[in-house]
Amino acid sequence: MLSKKARQIKEYVAGEQINFGYIKLNSNENPYPPSKAVLKAVKKAQRLNYYPSPKSDELRKALGQLYDINPDNIFIGNGSDEVLGLAYITFFNPKEKDIVFPDVTYSFYPVWAELYDINYRTIPVREDFTINADDYLNLENCQGIILANPNAPTSLELGKQDMEKIIQANQDKVIIIDEAYVDFGDYSCLDLTKKYNNVLVVRTFSKSWSLAGIRCGFAFGSLELINGLNKIRDCFNSYSLDRVAEAAATAAVKDYKSVLKRVAKIIYTRDRFIKALRELGWIALESKTNFVFASKPGADAKSIMLKLKESKILVRHFNLPRINNYLRITVGTNEQMDKLLKELQKI
Amino acid sequence: MLSKKARQIKEYVAGEQINFGYIKLNSNENPYPPSKAVLKAVKKAQRLNYYPSPKSDELRKALGQLYDINPDNIFIGNGSDEVLGLAYITFFNPKEKDIVFPDVTYSFYPVWAELYDINYRTIPVREDFTINADDYLNLENCQGIILANPNAPTSLELGKQDMEKIIQANQDKVIIIDEAYVDFGDYSCLDLTKKYNNVLVVRTFSKSWSLAGIRCGFAFGSLELINGLNKIRDCFNSYSLDRVAEAAATAAVKDYKSVLKRVAKIIYTRDRFIKALRELGWIALESKTNFVFASKPGADAKSIMLKLKESKILVRHFNLPRINNYLRITVGTNEQMDKLLKELQKI
Repeated sequence: MLSKKARQIKEYVAGEQINFGYIKLNSNENPYPPSKAVLKAVKKAQRLNYYPSPKSDELRKALGQLYDINPDNIFIGNGSDEVLGLAYITFFNPKEKDIVFPDVTYSFYPVWAELYDINYRTIPVREDFTINADDYLNLENCQGIILANPNAPTSLELGKQDMEKIIQANQDKVIIIDEAYVDFGDYSCLDLTKKYNNVLVVRTFSKSWSLAGIRCGFAFGSLELINGLNKIRDCFNSYSLDRVAEAAATAAVKDYKSVLKRVAKIIYTRDRFIKALRELGWIALESKTNFVFASKPGADAKSIMLKLKESKILVRHFNLPRINNYLRITVGTNEQMDKLLKELQKI
Repeated sequence: MLSKKARQIKEYVAGEQINFGYIKLNSNENPYPPSKAVLKAVKKAQRLNYYPSPKSDELRKALGQLYDINPDNIFIGNGSDEVLGLAYITFFNPKEKDIVFPDVTYSFYPVWAELYDINYRTIPVREDFTINADDYLNLENCQGIILANPNAPTSLELGKQDMEKIIQANQDKVIIIDEAYVDFGDYSCLDLTKKYNNVLVVRTFSKSWSLAGIRCGFAFGSLELINGLNKIRDCFNSYSLDRVAEAAATAAVKDYKSVLKRVAKIIYTRDRFIKALRELGWIALESKTNFVFASKPGADAKSIMLKLKESKILVRHFNLPRINNYLRITVGTNEQMDKLLKELQKI
């Protein structure tokens, strides 16, 4: 009864969602709840019997003010995964030239390509997991580029000069910059969306904003890109963001100061955790995200992950080439990381 | 910068969303807010910084109890539009045999077909807008059938015997029965999903449940169909229903009695409104939904719609063949319908 696609495709596998009894460091969620202003907005959500604003007008207005962007240059979706999924249909043609992205990056990128029959190829990151910008300057047979920056699961950031070099060399194709973790890094490409009409910057409320539970993502880009996304969204689901989610996200944007406070706490904990891990003899990459990508030389990463699970701590292991001896560990609270370090000392 | 698809496709156009100052009878929303139990659940929503349950376990459990269905036979989506959009990829192959649906039905059906390059053809409804089941018994070059029942925008219901005749004649293909309006009609095909493994029944929380603002839809079907939908959902968006929406929908399911009360009120208002419209010389079809499909002989439907808008009443007009002299009027409260009738008397 299933289509060929549904039979053949291999789906993306998200981090395990266990709600209670575990220290959850496997999905890069924020350990701190959103601010009181957000919870108040949720409580006040009204008119639930009426459809929401199709383009989430209030939220776009608030984001426009915060980032000094015209709301018409902002697209809202049901999580940045929906934004990215719709972007593939909007910008890339099936069965034509490749889209390209690094071999070590968000493992959903190849899945959307398979879903929509878009050809793709990956460009290997260096031995140290950094992206070599030069690899992206003379791309043949290529209709688009996707770069997570900072990258996941490596946690590394590509420098701004390198990024602009890539953009300048590829002005004939859409470049999607997935900035899910940008608030934990050094810079955003947001300003480049004003300079280059082929750059789409995608963001999420799931990480720095402490709102993974409300499913909201957004994108900045030229009118051409944003209008295209709106059109394709109207071919899939006229109202993808619900009233409560819009109210919560809008309140969060208006209370951005509290986001910055939580981000600062996480960065502090992250750098402290990296230092402690290294003292235990681990390799831990220089993180510009809310997670740490780390490996214990001579040990098997998967068994460490399983042992931690026995101790009620969840971390993420990817059974993928090049990174199968690494763990991706979300930065939780200081207390959670101390407990994790204690367990790691035992192992 | 846009894909060929994004440039060529014609998007679905939803009813205009104006929130304040209008009597809103253009999107088939429920005029009554959800019950206190639902609002309480929204207020109590917690752990917003963590991802929701990927398959909405609590909601599936509650729906399973209400409808006496195994939760594994239930799929949840971000509105029934998302459920339908994902169903097209899950069950139909691009550029192969046609999918078929009536010529007068939900105008999103051809849009999804265009979006995914699935060939389709329409089967004309009779002059009186009823579906002739015999037209669906010997379908050649056909890989699937989609029937809204009760149908929109006609408001008419196909009899259960006719429906089962269609299903029996088409056991080799997936039949999607879109029951968005079923609670205002005479019967559901839910029991047929247990008897036939090729039948998918799709439902929404947007109409009878008074929850258009939270974007939640669901589907019943065999394990094969539901597992296929879950797999394709995992190729598009791992978490499509947020925590607050799941909490609200679950509370609504557990308080189904209050839904039935509101449905009874709407049916009463509907039948009263149809009678009054007919007394004014209008043609109004026998509605099994929360809207009325009606036409004033000798008058231009579009200008009536525009005149009503001047009087701050929104109704829906479709500029489509066969139905462009009809209006689709949502059943609001008694007071709203009385105000509408007063305006119609003036016109």
